[in-house]
Amino acid sequence: MFESAEIGHKVDRETYEKELPALREALLDAQDELVRKRGFQVVIIISGVDGGGRRESVHLLNEWLDPRHIETHGMGEPTDEEHDRPPMWRFWRVLPPRGKIGIFQGSWYSLPILDRVYGKCRNVDLEEAMEGNVRFEKMLSDEGALILKFWFHLSKPFQKSRLKSLEKDANTRWRVTKRDWEHFGLYDKFRKTSAEALRLTSSAQAPWYIIEGSDERYRSLMLGKIVLEALRLRLSSEHGPSHSIPSLPRLPRVDNLHILKSLDLNQKLARTEYEKKLEAYQGRLNVLTRDPRFGSISVVAAFEGNDAAGKGGSIRRITSALDARMVQVIPTAAPSDEEKAQPYLWRFWRQIPRRGRLAIFDRSWYGRVLVERVEGYCSEYDWLRAYNEINEFEAQLAHHGIVVLKFWLSISADEQLKRFQMREQTGFKHYKITDEDWRNRERWTDYEQAVCDMVDRTSSDLVPWTLVPANDKYHARIQVIKTLCEGIEAGLKRVRKR
Amino acid sequence: MFESAEIGHKVDRETYEKELPALREALLDAQDELVRKRGFQVVIIISGVDGGGRRESVHLLNEWLDPRHIETHGMGEPTDEEHDRPPMWRFWRVLPPRGKIGIFQGSWYSLPILDRVYGKCRNVDLEEAMEGNVRFEKMLSDEGALILKFWFHLSKPFQKSRLKSLEKDANTRWRVTKRDWEHFGLYDKFRKTSAEALRLTSSAQAPWYIIEGSDERYRSLMLGKIVLEALRLRLSSEHGPSHSIPSLPRLPRVDNLHILKSLDLNQKLARTEYEKKLEAYQGRLNVLTRDPRFGSISVVAAFEGNDAAGKGGSIRRITSALDARMVQVIPTAAPSDEEKAQPYLWRFWRQIPRRGRLAIFDRSWYGRVLVERVEGYCSEYDWLRAYNEINEFEAQLAHHGIVVLKFWLSISADEQLKRFQMREQTGFKHYKITDEDWRNRERWTDYEQAVCDMVDRTSSDLVPWTLVPANDKYHARIQVIKTLCEGIEAGLKRVRKR
Repeated sequence: MFESAEIGHKVDRETYEKELPALREALLDAQDELVRKRGFQVVIIISGVDGGGRRESVHLLNEWLDPRHIETHGMGEPTDEEHDRPPMWRFWRVLPPRGKIGIFQGSWYSLPILDRVYGKCRNVDLEEAMEGNVRFEKMLSDEGALILKFWFHLSKPFQKSRLKSLEKDANTRWRVTKRDWEHFGLYDKFRKTSAEALRLTSSAQAPWYIIEGSDERYRSLMLGKIVLEALRLRLSSEHGPSHSIPSLPRLPRVDNLHILKSLDLNQKLARTEYEKKLEAYQGRLNVLTRDPRFGSISVVAAFEGNDAAGKGGSIRRITSALDARMVQVIPTAAPSDEEKAQPYLWRFWRQIPRRGRLAIFDRSWYGRVLVERVEGYCSEYDWLRAYNEINEFEAQLAHHGIVVLKFWLSISADEQLKRFQMREQTGFKHYKITDEDWRNRERWTDYEQAVCDMVDRTSSDLVPWTLVPANDKYHARIQVIKTLCEGIEAGLKRVRKR
Repeated sequence: MFESAEIGHKVDRETYEKELPALREALLDAQDELVRKRGFQVVIIISGVDGGGRRESVHLLNEWLDPRHIETHGMGEPTDEEHDRPPMWRFWRVLPPRGKIGIFQGSWYSLPILDRVYGKCRNVDLEEAMEGNVRFEKMLSDEGALILKFWFHLSKPFQKSRLKSLEKDANTRWRVTKRDWEHFGLYDKFRKTSAEALRLTSSAQAPWYIIEGSDERYRSLMLGKIVLEALRLRLSSEHGPSHSIPSLPRLPRVDNLHILKSLDLNQKLARTEYEKKLEAYQGRLNVLTRDPRFGSISVVAAFEGNDAAGKGGSIRRITSALDARMVQVIPTAAPSDEEKAQPYLWRFWRQIPRRGRLAIFDRSWYGRVLVERVEGYCSEYDWLRAYNEINEFEAQLAHHGIVVLKFWLSISADEQLKRFQMREQTGFKHYKITDEDWRNRERWTDYEQAVCDMVDRTSSDLVPWTLVPANDKYHARIQVIKTLCEGIEAGLKRVRKR
């Protein structure tokens, strides 16, 4: 969920100052049109972690836009009068009318998330509140509202160093209270809870925009650009039937960084080291699958990666360690006629292993948001809804006690070229390289974008993505089998608890 | 929820035998086109109470349609193999492919509802399961499936007499087991639980068709006509963007009965009796609102009814019994400009009373599914989604401890005519009759249909509709104030429990 917002996004002063004037002017123009047309209302939710820039973002919007047509609501604890009514009442009554922008610092997300973090409610209560939020926002959206939800995030190390450096400076020391450190002590719980809340409520009508908050210029530019683009898209769209899903902007790229770039692809392992480790992990894996508790769980592992990233090799290092009756490798090719006559997830559902078994998918249900998206095999609406459908699918597996692992094997464009050429030159590997591989390569940046979106929208505490730097095959294989062993161990521990 | 399925619908043999041949032929034609085009799959869920005709309906469909293209699944308890996988797996794997019809007797509703009835899970678990079902069906629908969900219902008295008469006959006695009577003992619990489940899952993509099961000819004709109409609508629709809400048939009228017709509108109360009762109830109401516990609750009462049905008179009998500072009457006229700039529920949200107060709405948020629907002031999509939105709105009020009551004051067309003419003839009542009233009257049957749909789709255990026969004003006023007193009493009792 927060992967792309923990990699140190930054915008330098020069870029920022160059971009700002045009952005502000465009924002004012868009707002002016909004006010004149009064076609819809805008609801902006500003949330996130302490110090992530919520307050500053609210100020910025008020500075950049015409404040006469903005209503800012800092919703803290409910008042007595509000306590007397249902929890949503205080939000209902301050919704902005058409033509206005309502900014909510503190929203229908704040209390349910905090109550859960402080243990005042159960997980199922949080889920119920989030379902209610989805329905509420769907109704607002159906009624014409444009809903923009921002979450400003800081990584744990950054949050810690932020507090420390504020404390060091005599001028800012006052800003760090005991309560801030208490909050920091809850960082992991808060991260987990909010990731779950965001996953459940990132709907087609109102997706979350998760923005790294550590660099003020970066987060400000992101905020401004998303608001502008959303206003523009909405103002320019023909007023279609009210039940069409509104077009909303994708996360813009304002710096040159993304999660794949933040990986060090060249991590290496020497051959002798590799062989020693491989033997050790293969042994461990074999022992784990013969644990009596293994009969109560099962394993689903999905492998994705660049062409020629070494998925097959990694998979073979796993299967060769296992009793062949326990494990099935399911290669995913273009769908058959039988499969085409069913929902796209159907062919994967059928392959879910029974208890005590492993299923390894060589490419998987993620094809929908990778190749099908990039090649235009399905509509934007179809691949956008797939993120939620996939999350739901995997959550069902995980809740049933299945260990679900997913790997992205990442190689650089140069490394891929080398491997393609090698395959063409080596007779017995020739079959592994096709025109399609070369065509896919031309779409490198489209695939990169699709992979980043995929990881951001489908990585959760429950079922995280493992990104594997794979320029060095030894390194990649060991990381994969190690992650698999650890995943199974965690799964076995949960059996004992039940 | 079940109002329209407890009024003794019946179709005589002659009508049935006259309609059947054409229906069967049309069904086969439609299925033939489905099979040839293979454009979508059809999922039919057959559920309901014992003896409501589930088994017979499944047989009928297999008899009427070409069974080679039907897959029938009687899903009972999960097998060992199924237990090994997530609960939905067994449904996933048997989904019909495009061009086929899958009939599920026993579905993703059965176990969650039964588990709740038998107290094996909490209410919140049922809600979670139902949310999961909504998401699952939305995905299927987005993938192109046509989903038809049937619920066959029997009223409690009918169920009882059915079991008794089966027992009386030596030939059928074997069909009634101890288990049937045990089930009957759970009737109320089952009715309440399934009403809640149906309310939560009657989505735009897959609404429930609730059919009274007591008369075999009636329920068979309904089933056949709905399946036929749904196939036809879908086959004839241009294949639009996949995220449009599919057109689904409304409940057909195969007999001449509906809930409004099943009311005895001429129930009467003599004047002296009326005056005695009115005084008693007004006193009781006043005492109730001075109960110390009344400070913990509040009351929202919505009045709807035919023009000239006597809403105002009933409301005045309430307000005159109360401290004027406690109660507010909110008349609902055409929305103001300020109100038009907001979601349609906004102007009602704002008027939610604080604790210790009553708010009486003279016409209400139901305008959306009555006048706005009938007069075409909003699109079909808009008033269809309103049922769920209104349920959600009222559930939020009720969960907050607010006593929510809603009254439909029903008069006959003749009685209305008499009152209209009287108003025109009486000088001081002249202002109460307008051209609009006469126009509405021309749409009598459209309004009737809208009222029946409204009651079916928004009456729940939590917030039931009270249908008030109002040809006699005395009778109507006493029923209203009595219901109000009882509602407040129930609300006060819940306070003690908390």
